[in-house]
Amino acid sequence: MRDFRIAVAQINPIVGDLDYNSKKILEGIKKAEEMMADLVCFPELVLPGYPPEDLLLKPQFVEDNLKALEKIAKETGDVVAVVGFVDAEDDIYNAAAVIYEGEIKGVYRKMFLPNYSVFDEERYFQAGKEPNIFVINEVNVGITICEDIRYADGPALTQSLNGAELIVNLSSSPYHVGKRDFRKRMLSTRASDYCVYVAYTNLVGGQDELVFDGGSMVFDADGTLIAQAKIFEEDFLVVDLNPDGIFRRRLHDPRRRKEKLKAQMIEKIFVCKSTKQRQEIKPRVEEDLKIEEEVFKALVTGTRDYVRKNGFQRVLIGLSGGIDSSLVAAIAVEALGNENVVGVIMPSRFTSKASIEDAEILAKNLGIEIVRIPITKIFESYLDELRDSFKGKPWDTTEENIQARIRGNILMALSNKFGYLVLTTGNKSEMSVGYATLYGDMAGGFAVIKDVFKTMVYRIAKYINERSGKEVIPARIFEKPPSAELREDQKDEDDLPPYSILDPILKAYIEEDRAFDEIVAQGFDEDLVKRIIKMVDRNEYKRRQAPPGIKITPRAFGKDRRLPITNRYAPWK
Amino acid sequence: MRDFRIAVAQINPIVGDLDYNSKKILEGIKKAEEMMADLVCFPELVLPGYPPEDLLLKPQFVEDNLKALEKIAKETGDVVAVVGFVDAEDDIYNAAAVIYEGEIKGVYRKMFLPNYSVFDEERYFQAGKEPNIFVINEVNVGITICEDIRYADGPALTQSLNGAELIVNLSSSPYHVGKRDFRKRMLSTRASDYCVYVAYTNLVGGQDELVFDGGSMVFDADGTLIAQAKIFEEDFLVVDLNPDGIFRRRLHDPRRRKEKLKAQMIEKIFVCKSTKQRQEIKPRVEEDLKIEEEVFKALVTGTRDYVRKNGFQRVLIGLSGGIDSSLVAAIAVEALGNENVVGVIMPSRFTSKASIEDAEILAKNLGIEIVRIPITKIFESYLDELRDSFKGKPWDTTEENIQARIRGNILMALSNKFGYLVLTTGNKSEMSVGYATLYGDMAGGFAVIKDVFKTMVYRIAKYINERSGKEVIPARIFEKPPSAELREDQKDEDDLPPYSILDPILKAYIEEDRAFDEIVAQGFDEDLVKRIIKMVDRNEYKRRQAPPGIKITPRAFGKDRRLPITNRYAPWK
Repeated sequence: MRDFRIAVAQINPIVGDLDYNSKKILEGIKKAEEMMADLVCFPELVLPGYPPEDLLLKPQFVEDNLKALEKIAKETGDVVAVVGFVDAEDDIYNAAAVIYEGEIKGVYRKMFLPNYSVFDEERYFQAGKEPNIFVINEVNVGITICEDIRYADGPALTQSLNGAELIVNLSSSPYHVGKRDFRKRMLSTRASDYCVYVAYTNLVGGQDELVFDGGSMVFDADGTLIAQAKIFEEDFLVVDLNPDGIFRRRLHDPRRRKEKLKAQMIEKIFVCKSTKQRQEIKPRVEEDLKIEEEVFKALVTGTRDYVRKNGFQRVLIGLSGGIDSSLVAAIAVEALGNENVVGVIMPSRFTSKASIEDAEILAKNLGIEIVRIPITKIFESYLDELRDSFKGKPWDTTEENIQARIRGNILMALSNKFGYLVLTTGNKSEMSVGYATLYGDMAGGFAVIKDVFKTMVYRIAKYINERSGKEVIPARIFEKPPSAELREDQKDEDDLPPYSILDPILKAYIEEDRAFDEIVAQGFDEDLVKRIIKMVDRNEYKRRQAPPGIKITPRAFGKDRRLPITNRYAPWK
Repeated sequence: MRDFRIAVAQINPIVGDLDYNSKKILEGIKKAEEMMADLVCFPELVLPGYPPEDLLLKPQFVEDNLKALEKIAKETGDVVAVVGFVDAEDDIYNAAAVIYEGEIKGVYRKMFLPNYSVFDEERYFQAGKEPNIFVINEVNVGITICEDIRYADGPALTQSLNGAELIVNLSSSPYHVGKRDFRKRMLSTRASDYCVYVAYTNLVGGQDELVFDGGSMVFDADGTLIAQAKIFEEDFLVVDLNPDGIFRRRLHDPRRRKEKLKAQMIEKIFVCKSTKQRQEIKPRVEEDLKIEEEVFKALVTGTRDYVRKNGFQRVLIGLSGGIDSSLVAAIAVEALGNENVVGVIMPSRFTSKASIEDAEILAKNLGIEIVRIPITKIFESYLDELRDSFKGKPWDTTEENIQARIRGNILMALSNKFGYLVLTTGNKSEMSVGYATLYGDMAGGFAVIKDVFKTMVYRIAKYINERSGKEVIPARIFEKPPSAELREDQKDEDDLPPYSILDPILKAYIEEDRAFDEIVAQGFDEDLVKRIIKMVDRNEYKRRQAPPGIKITPRAFGKDRRLPITNRYAPWK
């Protein structure tokens, strides 16, 4: 009877840092050797880091990645490692190297290249053509890469009809809410459709706009989840498979007889035969998270990795006493530790006493340093110098924006002087309709909750209080009506509909590309829908100059949504 | 003997404005009718405007574009019009409709979809499969769309081997320096290779980062340019062809006999037979421009269209008395008229008297309004409020950036109050190495010379003086060493190498993706190259938040160059 032990190394590489990534990969290989695994899998493009974007257009980068792979290969011993890298032969490929005993035994090249949403793989890669099989310790293993397995008639079908008993999938699949369920359903179906083990190795960590949730999974041939790695953490799964069970099962699988017609001959590459004496290990299935916790961890991971991978230690956050900046501060504390978060309170003559108090209580609850810099006098000095130019003109958003930009300038000055990164606090509802000041509250290096609608902001803030069993974020912050406090008695609802109405309209328009009539038919006022759509479209220029933030929805602002600024399309015409 | 008259309508549509674009198209059709043409061609995707980007993912937009096409078709009479639009059948296609006598007679769908540089067509479109031929007034016409004709064995080969005597190419080809020569060479070769007339219809005008140069061309079957439209202007070319000459020529073409083997049957669609009595028209060949003039017109066109298509009348420019802001002001005046350009002079305690004088002389020469707003007092008010926080810290770039951001705030305040658009003045050399203040001098709606290296800035400025036969830009501005004037006696060369050394290093690294060793081998100091590359890479975050600007080189910042911000690749390791 054959036995087979697979290890899944769910790691967090850094884009472009070939030395660091090589070190992480070698650590994974060593660990797999210690655990007496036959095979250890790493995520897609783990060696260059994912996504490498236009680094892929630099021939030197591709060459350096190949050299790094050779070096890793030389240090491997008696475990087969499957490592994502950039292969090159006349063109470049998103590929997986099969490494064993100091040699690259073979390569699989990704056949299905995603070129939608945040993906641009047709920009870089040539598609592979060979759904080959690797014979590893007497077990037929089909390697696939991410998108490959989303096609029911993709390489995994061909491989399994040609005898593959285990389909390995190297993935770097960006997170969004609901995607984990989709993946689990789809992978489970592939396993049972093909009557095959499926080992899905996902990346973990943040990279600019993207965050990867890990949660690698192994399914048995009837589609049962037999192992799951931690979500939003590095992890190392070890699972014992029973390859002989596959053959027994297949004799009972009616679909298989019919599908067999589709089989085509493919290359089988012999990699190794080894006999390891080992005790069976019980696989571990880590628990899924509820939505608020999952999103919170996504934001924490994305923030931590953006800050740390870019070489920053501490961050600055302008605290207004509102829910958005409070949430961002709580996320930053979880990501970086309270010693690395500085709150900046910048009151103006429109700032209420309650707001200052709330910001101070929050900072105390979180245990973070506070800096207080009032903007009233600076604001006066601007008004003095602009008096002649503005003569006869009434107060309008100009004066509101000047205040927001003074705050932006102060935060950036502190950032420049001390080398701290500024986190911005705008949410997706505001980013959508442009309810934010460019170079003002939008000034900063990373926009933590840019893809979180206001209604979700409250849910996550509530979760934070629940998990710590106390009011980290003061109750009053939840209760008061949202306000920018840039003029007397200002409320968000003076300019915008309630968020409970705004958010679903935005979701329908931005995330679902619904037609104007369709949105109105959902029960919203026609004029309101028109006004909101106009605001969204007109503010494309602001979003183009916004800092990156973490994608948590199926359609985030950034490379996920590429609309022209110059755009006169009016969908109600 | 058959005669055939083709009209080329080189127009400037607006993305998303289906009504406006329809009107422009109908005007072109009417004009072609008046000129008794058999056929009138419009640019690629002229109806939705180009590039529509993610508007293409909105089903309602696609549907509205189809409705607009139907309306245009209904108004056509006895000239065949070939109109770029988005076709839809299960999926969407970049397509050309052949319209005649109120009907859509047929459709060609683009077969080669560019997905490199600024193009993302695989993101949107399904590729066409039919290199059909349209029989228009007894002449066999093959329609192709832009990229299609860049492939020597693309649809135009199949069409011409199946009898096409005229290849029409609808194009929306973004400008960069040198591209006009490339196109001319390539199209001339296609015409002589296939022994066929080639009529290339290009878009003209600006759209966000892109500018289209027009310069539509017609080549005869030996590759001679027989007509060329104006460059960077709307134009309407009419050319009489001699289709019978094609057959005579083909009997003498040795390549054709050999190529014939490649022929495959394709569909021929009969469109019309008409007999028009007309006098021959001598075709017009507009002159090419020299580089400085061409780039100047590109910048003028891009600026005019960004400002106007986004609904702005007037622009604001911060005038420093330096060459960059002087050039931008001159471009803006050419684009919008001097009555629509306002110069803002914002002196600090570090601004030299000469700089203020130079800015004033420039403004006078250009005849533009000036606003003067000193920043000294505002700067003092910031230093006052920051004094405690900055205690014990020496003056550094922080204080420089505060000043630049005060200017940014003032410009934006004027913009907000009066509804003028702010043009920024940073050049490509500065944008590359991050020698600019985010939210400071980078604050604004459009970055006119963002893709123009400093050495080219001087060349264009010189050209501006030459063409007007006087010193529009004062000689002293050319002569003084460049300086940001943000501290005492500051010069660009304190921080950067001379631009004559910096620019070629940047070109090699940014536009050509050269390896580190390759750049050093060009004769540059190793440490300097390393320092420059570090600066370029480290400042990706600034460029990500920069306003869009006009692409004039083969590789501009923006959607042309997609590098990660989080990126630890060090090519000298």
